[in-house]
Amino acid sequence: MSTARAYAIDRPDGHFSPTTITRREPGPTEIAFDIAYAGICHSDIHTARQEWGPVRYPLVPGHEIAGVVTKVGSGVTKYALGDRVGVGCFVDSCGHCPDCEAGTEQFCREAIYTYNAVGRDGLPADGGYSTSITVEQDYVCRIPDSIPLPNAAPLLCAGITTYSPLKRWGAGAGKQVAIIGMGGLGHVAVQIASAMGADVSVISQTRSKEADGLRFGARDYHAMAEPGTLKKLRGRFDIMLSTVAAAKDLTPFLGCLKNGGVFVDVGMPADNMELNIRALCLGNKIMAGSLIGGIAETQEMLDFCGEHNLGAVVEVIGGEDIDAAYDAVVASKVRYRYVIDTSTFPEA
Amino acid sequence: MSTARAYAIDRPDGHFSPTTITRREPGPTEIAFDIAYAGICHSDIHTARQEWGPVRYPLVPGHEIAGVVTKVGSGVTKYALGDRVGVGCFVDSCGHCPDCEAGTEQFCREAIYTYNAVGRDGLPADGGYSTSITVEQDYVCRIPDSIPLPNAAPLLCAGITTYSPLKRWGAGAGKQVAIIGMGGLGHVAVQIASAMGADVSVISQTRSKEADGLRFGARDYHAMAEPGTLKKLRGRFDIMLSTVAAAKDLTPFLGCLKNGGVFVDVGMPADNMELNIRALCLGNKIMAGSLIGGIAETQEMLDFCGEHNLGAVVEVIGGEDIDAAYDAVVASKVRYRYVIDTSTFPEA
Repeated sequence: MSTARAYAIDRPDGHFSPTTITRREPGPTEIAFDIAYAGICHSDIHTARQEWGPVRYPLVPGHEIAGVVTKVGSGVTKYALGDRVGVGCFVDSCGHCPDCEAGTEQFCREAIYTYNAVGRDGLPADGGYSTSITVEQDYVCRIPDSIPLPNAAPLLCAGITTYSPLKRWGAGAGKQVAIIGMGGLGHVAVQIASAMGADVSVISQTRSKEADGLRFGARDYHAMAEPGTLKKLRGRFDIMLSTVAAAKDLTPFLGCLKNGGVFVDVGMPADNMELNIRALCLGNKIMAGSLIGGIAETQEMLDFCGEHNLGAVVEVIGGEDIDAAYDAVVASKVRYRYVIDTSTFPEA
Repeated sequence: MSTARAYAIDRPDGHFSPTTITRREPGPTEIAFDIAYAGICHSDIHTARQEWGPVRYPLVPGHEIAGVVTKVGSGVTKYALGDRVGVGCFVDSCGHCPDCEAGTEQFCREAIYTYNAVGRDGLPADGGYSTSITVEQDYVCRIPDSIPLPNAAPLLCAGITTYSPLKRWGAGAGKQVAIIGMGGLGHVAVQIASAMGADVSVISQTRSKEADGLRFGARDYHAMAEPGTLKKLRGRFDIMLSTVAAAKDLTPFLGCLKNGGVFVDVGMPADNMELNIRALCLGNKIMAGSLIGGIAETQEMLDFCGEHNLGAVVEVIGGEDIDAAYDAVVASKVRYRYVIDTSTFPEA
């Protein structure tokens, strides 16, 4: 056992404060690494505030984790001391069910999520708002040298969440792709879809992020606040990727698809949506869900981002800024992802 | 011009009565054929009763049409006198838009539907409840010799409506396919999916059609009326094809899909459905719409049905039975499709 410094929250309406947690020594096929940066994902906030179901407090969130390997078990073959690595939303799975065999370990019934779970050691699984973590090597990804660690951390969730459906549905040259919402997920999605060769349009609430959107590679930028925006875009897109969490009437969005096109929602709105099935039938349209991605695909995504020199655009904060950052994320004020620098964590 | 005997309805709450209509002489690339049988599709009823928008009365419905060629234009290359042919939901399209080029002419903005439309001659387009019709050869399909005309007629709509999504989404050997509802569409879907090699399950309201379902090729039959049916089927299917028109909460149905599976709705419920997007995200699931199919795919479907000796199971009725048949269809009493024998039509 070793100790790590961390930030924890102890109740749904609580605040984050410094604490000390324990991390197990790496088993034969495990590694330990010093966490340099952890991204703040909107789902951290939903979980910490108990908006998504029961939470075991005190909670140390964080599933966008980047750092450097410090210990390796005797049987570790994949990583060596000093390697730059990352961990995303889960740290274990059964390894032999149909989902694990299909490379979609995120759906394994025995998957252990990175926090708000019980680890393989039977102890509460603390997340990335801490200075170190111990993980089985098969659930760790390598971070390409070309991506600075602060910009890499959010890719472990925001990157794979958007890369996986863009790839599955064929984003690439000649394809018209719309990214709906340009926050933590959307600003990465614009970069990835552009790097895949697609013609990317942003559909955002206002024009406040237009210059950034074009810089990230978008060809067009549309503001929902302007009347007639969706009408103007009728029949335009092969793929629409919604990264916004607000429940909505899907029908006018589906009208912006080409026949045969696909609308993917990764915003995970909690409320039911309204859907007129004819909006799908008239044009053989598709509506799809997507949830992060498996480990092999996460590595593929990181390698892709490395080759294309892209990463999350971040604001680096200290541990004492987490509460304020949560409020700013909820208010859509972050440009575009907060990343916590764990070197700021005090001894508890 | 020639005349044809027909059955028409003159107002939303009216009754069908015999009438005489005119049909144009075939142009250079058109054929005329004697209609032997016309199926009664639920959408005929929605249209005749003006439940789906404005109707031009008097209306002669019918878009499941089978008969024998009697006249060919001077430039007709595809058909000869005596050929057994069929016409489905549309009789014309522009021929050069992206949808026409993609073989999805049903979505062409200039597509002319078989009835409740204006034909290329500028006259009201009367449908299949009549003794003859004149159609451009490219919008006619050949009916394989192995399918009797009464059993072939409904394939022109019910067959292609179910064949197209089953093929698109990969129904075949090793795939678990559920057909929801076993009426006019569903009873054909069970036969087609079984012939494609899939393991087919029927999900019906009651067990009243169980013996038929198994005869059509299903391996399993489940009744929604029995408690816990959907719970028992959790995670079971690669493809679910819903042929029922009632709006519903989709979430428990989506739970019956395997991860990555697809739920296709061809029932076209008029009301909005409720959808919790998480039911799609947790398992990378897909929800898709589908609307009939293009001409080439309709021919492919007919050839497939011919090879596999399958067709609609029909009750042949006379023109005077149409009103009663409509009521029986709405009450789900038909086994499984009414087909009108036009030889019963009196001179008006």
